Amino acid sequence: MENWSPGEGGRLPVAVLGATGTVGQRLVTLLADHPWFELKVVAASERSAGRPYGEAVRWLLPTPMPETVANMTVARCEPTLGTPLVFSALDTETANTLEPACAREGALVVTNASSYRMAPRVPLVIPEVNPEHLEMLVRQDFGHGAIAANPNCTTIGLVLALAPLRRAFGLRRVNVVSMQAISGAGLPGVASLEIFDNVIPYISGEEDKVEHEAQKILGGVDANGFAPAELTVSATCTRVPVLDAHTLVVSVELERDAEPEEMLAAWEKFRGAPQELELPTAPLAPLHVHLGVDAPQPRICRDLDRGMAAHVGRLRRCPLLGWKFVTLSHNTLRGAAGGTLLVAELAYAQGMVDASGLRH
Amino acid sequence: MENWSPGEGGRLPVAVLGATGTVGQRLVTLLADHPWFELKVVAASERSAGRPYGEAVRWLLPTPMPETVANMTVARCEPTLGTPLVFSALDTETANTLEPACAREGALVVTNASSYRMAPRVPLVIPEVNPEHLEMLVRQDFGHGAIAANPNCTTIGLVLALAPLRRAFGLRRVNVVSMQAISGAGLPGVASLEIFDNVIPYISGEEDKVEHEAQKILGGVDANGFAPAELTVSATCTRVPVLDAHTLVVSVELERDAEPEEMLAAWEKFRGAPQELELPTAPLAPLHVHLGVDAPQPRICRDLDRGMAAHVGRLRRCPLLGWKFVTLSHNTLRGAAGGTLLVAELAYAQGMVDASGLRH
Amino acid sequence: MENWSPGEGGRLPVAVLGATGTVGQRLVTLLADHPWFELKVVAASERSAGRPYGEAVRWLLPTPMPETVANMTVARCEPTLGTPLVFSALDTETANTLEPACAREGALVVTNASSYRMAPRVPLVIPEVNPEHLEMLVRQDFGHGAIAANPNCTTIGLVLALAPLRRAFGLRRVNVVSMQAISGAGLPGVASLEIFDNVIPYISGEEDKVEHEAQKILGGVDANGFAPAELTVSATCTRVPVLDAHTLVVSVELERDAEPEEMLAAWEKFRGAPQELELPTAPLAPLHVHLGVDAPQPRICRDLDRGMAAHVGRLRRCPLLGWKFVTLSHNTLRGAAGGTLLVAELAYAQGMVDASGLRH
Amino acid sequence: MENWSPGEGGRLPVAVLGATGTVGQRLVTLLADHPWFELKVVAASERSAGRPYGEAVRWLLPTPMPETVANMTVARCEPTLGTPLVFSALDTETANTLEPACAREGALVVTNASSYRMAPRVPLVIPEVNPEHLEMLVRQDFGHGAIAANPNCTTIGLVLALAPLRRAFGLRRVNVVSMQAISGAGLPGVASLEIFDNVIPYISGEEDKVEHEAQKILGGVDANGFAPAELTVSATCTRVPVLDAHTLVVSVELERDAEPEEMLAAWEKFRGAPQELELPTAPLAPLHVHLGVDAPQPRICRDLDRGMAAHVGRLRRCPLLGWKFVTLSHNTLRGAAGGTLLVAELAYAQGMVDASGLRH
Repeated sequence: MENWSPGEGGRLPVAVLGATGTVGQRLVTLLADHPWFELKVVAASERSAGRPYGEAVRWLLPTPMPETVANMTVARCEPTLGTPLVFSALDTETANTLEPACAREGALVVTNASSYRMAPRVPLVIPEVNPEHLEMLVRQDFGHGAIAANPNCTTIGLVLALAPLRRAFGLRRVNVVSMQAISGAGLPGVASLEIFDNVIPYISGEEDKVEHEAQKILGGVDANGFAPAELTVSATCTRVPVLDAHTLVVSVELERDAEPEEMLAAWEKFRGAPQELELPTAPLAPLHVHLGVDAPQPRICRDLDRGMAAHVGRLRRCPLLGWKFVTLSHNTLRGAAGGTLLVAELAYAQGMVDASGLRH
Repeated sequence: MENWSPGEGGRLPVAVLGATGTVGQRLVTLLADHPWFELKVVAASERSAGRPYGEAVRWLLPTPMPETVANMTVARCEPTLGTPLVFSALDTETANTLEPACAREGALVVTNASSYRMAPRVPLVIPEVNPEHLEMLVRQDFGHGAIAANPNCTTIGLVLALAPLRRAFGLRRVNVVSMQAISGAGLPGVASLEIFDNVIPYISGEEDKVEHEAQKILGGVDANGFAPAELTVSATCTRVPVLDAHTLVVSVELERDAEPEEMLAAWEKFRGAPQELELPTAPLAPLHVHLGVDAPQPRICRDLDRGMAAHVGRLRRCPLLGWKFVTLSHNTLRGAAGGTLLVAELAYAQGMVDASGLRH
Repeated sequence: MENWSPGEGGRLPVAVLGATGTVGQRLVTLLADHPWFELKVVAASERSAGRPYGEAVRWLLPTPMPETVANMTVARCEPTLGTPLVFSALDTETANTLEPACAREGALVVTNASSYRMAPRVPLVIPEVNPEHLEMLVRQDFGHGAIAANPNCTTIGLVLALAPLRRAFGLRRVNVVSMQAISGAGLPGVASLEIFDNVIPYISGEEDKVEHEAQKILGGVDANGFAPAELTVSATCTRVPVLDAHTLVVSVELERDAEPEEMLAAWEKFRGAPQELELPTAPLAPLHVHLGVDAPQPRICRDLDRGMAAHVGRLRRCPLLGWKFVTLSHNTLRGAAGGTLLVAELAYAQGMVDASGLRH
Repeated sequence: MENWSPGEGGRLPVAVLGATGTVGQRLVTLLADHPWFELKVVAASERSAGRPYGEAVRWLLPTPMPETVANMTVARCEPTLGTPLVFSALDTETANTLEPACAREGALVVTNASSYRMAPRVPLVIPEVNPEHLEMLVRQDFGHGAIAANPNCTTIGLVLALAPLRRAFGLRRVNVVSMQAISGAGLPGVASLEIFDNVIPYISGEEDKVEHEAQKILGGVDANGFAPAELTVSATCTRVPVLDAHTLVVSVELERDAEPEEMLAAWEKFRGAPQELELPTAPLAPLHVHLGVDAPQPRICRDLDRGMAAHVGRLRRCPLLGWKFVTLSHNTLRGAAGGTLLVAELAYAQGMVDASGLRH
């Protein structure tokens, strides 16, 4: 890992694993003109390897495929990619073995896969919420490299809305029901015959992720590792016929009394490391507060602030837990590709990775 | 009201108010070959009055318009319809004044409108759950007639699933998040531009109805009136791009411990007056229990048992309230037209209405 | 093939190949209570073989799975099924070899697959249009058995509308643009990410089928085989976000002048062998004529007459070809499972198949 | 009309009539940062007048409402708006009287309404196709002002694809079947209950517009007025469940033989006045040629080149007319707001309108 040559204009060379999938397509789009990172390698399955990206991919985004990427030759997914920073949009099974292998080759792997999210020394980071968890990167045992994980797409929207409430008022219990978009399942993903005119009230593994990832993200970190937050979360995850953005109906029990104005203010003024450090992919505000009686709505809100904000609204009292509200965020931008990129930008801005790989 | 002449074959003559709307269309379809009731009058707005039903209506059901109804001349919506039993599928505003007027003319009005659901002496009835509430019909002050109400479409599916649990284990608290179909809003109803690729996380007035109707239905009745059940319900109601059937994600806190097998058994064996009396529109079983990991689903289940059953599934423990599950039911059949008809069949089977009107 | 034992009640024993797919599900539903045929064998892929049908299938119909079928053990797809009549809902590749093999074992194979539709001696039959083509069954060279084919789902709706016009006025040229439902692609079929909020203006192989099958069906038959009709058809086939029913926009050039009233009358009075022979699955009328300005519409019409009719409307002059109109039909009922069953019923009613197999 | 004061930065002051509708929302978005025009007046119905635009509008675009517009007070729709250039996104009935009235006050009215499209001296302009038609502006009799019209949303996509073919090979006959998006109908527009899981094979008045507008646009102009092109067009217009972009299946008969490569080249190299004059809203290329077997698709292509291009693909021989292909374009951008703006930009770039109104 000694020979990283800096990218053009001094940008850090990066690779994307799983570049042809739906999250991969978002990643290469976001990386095409990135001020800090230079996309050097697009890697995908055997079937795609060796072909021009523009031919290997089934492009499904409404924005054009970046021309520079279209002409890149797809590489195999293998540990030695030759870049100090590797983005992973792999499926869980491939990620299980390939991500640690890449790390052992010295790369900082920032992943959207779920394989290592709950691993003891892998930081699971929402940059506005728990940037300090990144310090655990240097305590991992994946050789010279490391793995940082982006949370589940539903977890991110939920925790962005919860974090300022927890900080201001304490937070004991959370109930969340999600209505998730079809793009979250990738391709072929959900068959049209299954979701058309339908609700599928189950997404494999999703509820467990939401319930436990939230505790890790909102928890503390010290030399011994992560200490999950004392917080009970009950989740039901469903799939609805919406293209992009997961909508969550949330009830919360706070530790101390709050007035609605205080809660709205806590959301409104919420800012974090990405805003302070002016990370390139950061939203202007991580939370947009909507006061309209029927807001927020996924089709109307998901692309605002470049798809990187979560949207909250319908705050009102709940006779069971105290308060309830609705939150939503773009599942493949903020919830996947954009969130993953933001974690990498945070690590880079904090000097944790440079052309020679992970800094120790 | 002395001169009711019996319908053909001794069937009871009935009228439908609001016969051209979406619920009205379901009602006339269900009444076209009814063994006990004979559809004599289809009444609608001024715009439709005087025209053949087949021309006045914008038919939107996938089943054919009954030919006998197509040729009926649409009557005006007025108090004197000349039938001892009147079904109302009116909008709330019209129902406010017209339903009591019809009752004062001696008819038993069975209504799907929300105007009088919470009125002190109007029974709000799910025939499997609280048939005894009908006894309040004779204590009303709408002249010789009376009003019986069918609950809100979301309430019905919820309460059908709750009633056997409450009976068997006691029930303290309920959280419900609904994903409601577009047919519930009638015509023109929800604009396609609003709901397409979207979730609208708000339905005007709906949450309040669900929270309070459940208490009335599950409560008691005596000479003084209805005593609402001590039960806290928190509801969030949303609209999703599904044609028919409302899907509910429910969490419940029971009064005493229960094993999942007991709960499933309570649902499985649940039967009520409609099944005992073999009411013509009764489902074979009011609750269908689904054990599949991703069941029930609205498009797959809604039409089973003629659209008159509620479907429950995904029963599992909830770290907050104890138990959670999913339930759904057809919103314009069980939840509206079919439910309304079932209330009328119950009243008729119990001898509360005959050709001379309400029996006192 | 000597030992067929008659089914219960003297019904003919039948098998379904590909019984777990979307067309197979429709077939077993239609066969569950069939007056002439008794479903004895449900066969599917290796993965399903040996399991109860109710567990092996991913049921996607809004009607319940017939209980009798749910408990049947799925058989392997192999030539010796032990029934004189075999329905095939196989994919093309499997059908290529398995259908002739079944025929060679003595069965009459009635297939929805496209493998042998254009084979020289295989009748391609719409029972209302070309029942006489079945006579070619006894001239095939698949051993003692034979293959009869149901046309493509789009072809059927088109030809049902064209046949009476051709008979009455002659027909020279046809332009057709289809808007096809997603259920036609089976499972997993069309990915929701592909068709959601989208039109896919291409369906592999479909246009060629529509253009050539129509000529065969409308053509003649004699001892030498089939003589395609002299008829030019230009087809463009697209996929739209509709669950069931293919909608076709058709322009036609007739051989002689016609008045619209004559054309409507030709459609209205159109009847064929299924109606004359009162075949169990026959629609009351193969064509339903709609006069409404915006009719027919797939969601409203597809299930009428048990999904076995085609619907025509919007007849008006075309400045290019003379006349244009819209037609639609249910693609998995009339266009697949129901159409296939109707062909078998026709063969049975005409004495071409009995308990000893194909009659020679 | 003597006292126009130039807008800020010398930009021309403009007004939008019907600013709260779906086309109006697109217009104000496009005008918010326009380099040549300054949005001074947003006018809408009585109900909205006097309120801040941000409150009066039901915003339905996925892009944020421009903040500068949100705070503008909505004006009444009346003839005297005080700007030399007026955009109209009015409904037909209001446009009938208000557009000439505005013109008589001296303004150049560029309209998306259909009222005056076929009027003898009103140019109906696709800037890439018939920019010379604008010369008729000075021959109108609407006082000192004039009206220029943007064609129907379906016509625009069609004619953009036809124009280069006509120029290169001559064009005799055209058959077109449209699959139109729901946003074309505005709000409330198409009820979700009508279009959900459905195709509506009729759009009032649309086919007539497409058939005749194409002839006017492709026709000539001289001192006597417009001479329609000799061109037969047969159109069938349908509505499908797609949010934005109309997809057209087109067959054409050319006057002389052409090879597909020539036709593709004619499309590829097609440029017009907007590209030459570098109009701010012009697409880089008015036609994007797609070679993929299943392209173009509305959800994938509609937003490319800022929604201002038409997309063509699937070019192949047609046994009836010679050639067939598929084209699509964004109906509320290229087909409405963007197209209208482009006409105004063309007039402004050609010096036909300035701060003193229409130049004579």
